Amino acid sequence: MKSHRKELWFNTNQRREFINITKFIEQEIILSKIKEGFVLVNAMHITASVFINDDETGLHQDFEKFLEKVAPEKPHSQYKHNGYEDNADAHIKRQLFGREVVCAITNGKLDFGPWEQIFYGEFDGLRNKRVLVKIIGE
Amino acid sequence: MKSHRKELWFNTNQRREFINITKFIEQEIILSKIKEGFVLVNAMHITASVFINDDETGLHQDFEKFLEKVAPEKPHSQYKHNGYEDNADAHIKRQLFGREVVCAITNGKLDFGPWEQIFYGEFDGLRNKRVLVKIIGE
Amino acid sequence: MKSHRKELWFNTNQRREFINITKFIEQEIILSKIKEGFVLVNAMHITASVFINDDETGLHQDFEKFLEKVAPEKPHSQYKHNGYEDNADAHIKRQLFGREVVCAITNGKLDFGPWEQIFYGEFDGLRNKRVLVKIIGE
Repeated sequence: MKSHRKELWFNTNQRREFINITKFIEQEIILSKIKEGFVLVNAMHITASVFINDDETGLHQDFEKFLEKVAPEKPHSQYKHNGYEDNADAHIKRQLFGREVVCAITNGKLDFGPWEQIFYGEFDGLRNKRVLVKIIGE
Repeated sequence: MKSHRKELWFNTNQRREFINITKFIEQEIILSKIKEGFVLVNAMHITASVFINDDETGLHQDFEKFLEKVAPEKPHSQYKHNGYEDNADAHIKRQLFGREVVCAITNGKLDFGPWEQIFYGEFDGLRNKRVLVKIIGE
Repeated sequence: MKSHRKELWFNTNQRREFINITKFIEQEIILSKIKEGFVLVNAMHITASVFINDDETGLHQDFEKFLEKVAPEKPHSQYKHNGYEDNADAHIKRQLFGREVVCAITNGKLDFGPWEQIFYGEFDGLRNKRVLVKIIGE
């Protein structure tokens, strides 16, 4: 069994942002030389998500509106977590969109349906944060 | 390390439907001849989920009601994604119920608790859509 | 490829509770002698979650408040699932917080960011329930 590991770093310009990271994952699969296996992609921070959906701007606006409706950022004082912190909403949003994805690798490639794209979902940005890519297989 | 891959196809009669796919996954584990490992089961489309819960009709009605309450299908015009499309709600519902499950295989079987059943959750059906089953192990 | 399996048992004093189980997972990784691989940690019951977030009491109160807002326990009669049962809300809460986490193992340790902690999320407690830990790798 072979394994391969990579950290990806992101620093978003906005508090909340969705970044398509599919091409970075494809590159790590190539570097790993693994033909059959799994790739795990997870946020290493607890106010961010990694998820798979469509790369469509309107949909991303719908995601933002939905998440702000069910777990609004403000007023910050509505959350017990927010004293020194102001990011309780980001922890909840991350719970809803998930920490990680596990994807199949087949014939050395991401084994994806036609519209699947991997996103980094930042909910408390404006600083350096990491995503872990770990690949196992043969 | 061995691996095994299968695509399952579904075409639901309703826009939203939950289908118990546990027996198909059990069959692929047998075919794989893998005794110890992981099975990944994921929707290959971004308006569908794979998840594990109870096979109980009342509960599935509760799931439907919950998802329609937090991310209603109509009016279609409430979503930016919906111009040519009408399925923004299905993308959001899929986010909440998840894309995939990873399950343990022990002694050649799904290593499950007493009530765990694997479901395909369709949120934009009436057409052919796929689920990927990928197994790795020994 | 090596594999390792362990069941963890929990019996919470309250209906809903979050328990930090990180140290149990770290122990199983040591026992497995696996240096590079994946660890799957999943609830074996369908009214409980395993998830990764911050070990902060205020935040856990925010989680509880959020889940009770979107999927309230009472009145029990609002759910079709609740006849002999009274835990439909717990099935929905589990859907939102997820069944499982998959974590990377690197150099024989959990490959985690600075604040990542693994939690058992109980939504229908006061009885014995299990979490499965399955590790594969080399």
